[in-house]
Amino acid sequence: MDTPDSGLREGEAAVTLPGEPADAALRFIGRIRTPWRERAACPRRGDPEAGPPCRLELDPLWEPALEGLAPGDAVQVLYWMHEARRDLVSQVPRHSGRRTGTFALRSPVRPNPIASSVARILAIDGPVVTLRGLDCLDGTPLLDLKPDHGAAT
Amino acid sequence: MDTPDSGLREGEAAVTLPGEPADAALRFIGRIRTPWRERAACPRRGDPEAGPPCRLELDPLWEPALEGLAPGDAVQVLYWMHEARRDLVSQVPRHSGRRTGTFALRSPVRPNPIASSVARILAIDGPVVTLRGLDCLDGTPLLDLKPDHGAAT
Repeated sequence: MDTPDSGLREGEAAVTLPGEPADAALRFIGRIRTPWRERAACPRRGDPEAGPPCRLELDPLWEPALEGLAPGDAVQVLYWMHEARRDLVSQVPRHSGRRTGTFALRSPVRPNPIASSVARILAIDGPVVTLRGLDCLDGTPLLDLKPDHGAAT
Repeated sequence: MDTPDSGLREGEAAVTLPGEPADAALRFIGRIRTPWRERAACPRRGDPEAGPPCRLELDPLWEPALEGLAPGDAVQVLYWMHEARRDLVSQVPRHSGRRTGTFALRSPVRPNPIASSVARILAIDGPVVTLRGLDCLDGTPLLDLKPDHGAAT
């Protein structure tokens, strides 16, 4: 049940965040282009083998930082879920209907909405990396990519 | 070879970052306590089964957000490598001696120094989570934790 004035479902809880969230600052290194224009259209989880090709469009400044990556490589992609609220401690996911702590969910709603997906590179063309395995909105800000070695460190 | 005036090794390259890195702001949700007080002492990669117990000390504000996590669970832990420089596009890792793009490495040195480790929970006591699998400095700022389902989305 949505509560119109707060946007919370019954059982959900928000906290009042102390001051501005500015302990550290992020720099977007590019944007992610995907086929999905609305959150409802995004798949629940990307598929690095069978998902549709998506693109990381890096700021050309970072093109030299791709040296050493190649088609076929698995990479961990970190991105910023810029549309998510950040103050919920308890959530009631639609799929379970049960109150659950934010850190027991992979929901975009969390104090630092950083998502992590493993994707497989199809092609690299200058500062543009084409890959499969993402599940985010078109236009999502890109934070990082790095080699994935299974259980990542 | 270190170049004293810039801290770069031969073959490494930095970029001039445009303005302040403030596309988005992070809020630290706590600190990580580990046995390692210097970077040289940190293991190269944490071990979620045999590594020493470490602790996530969350701000008590976030304690309710742990509901649903339990000992034995594998979690992805995101943290901020606050001592790393952010402007290198090319690096020469000691272990290879070869020039490599930043995004082809898991080095802490990157535009957004966010690390991701998979760890296994040993205990939860109020806002403190004890777990194995981390490899970071004592006092490292904590950004997020979420359930790990293998190749993470």
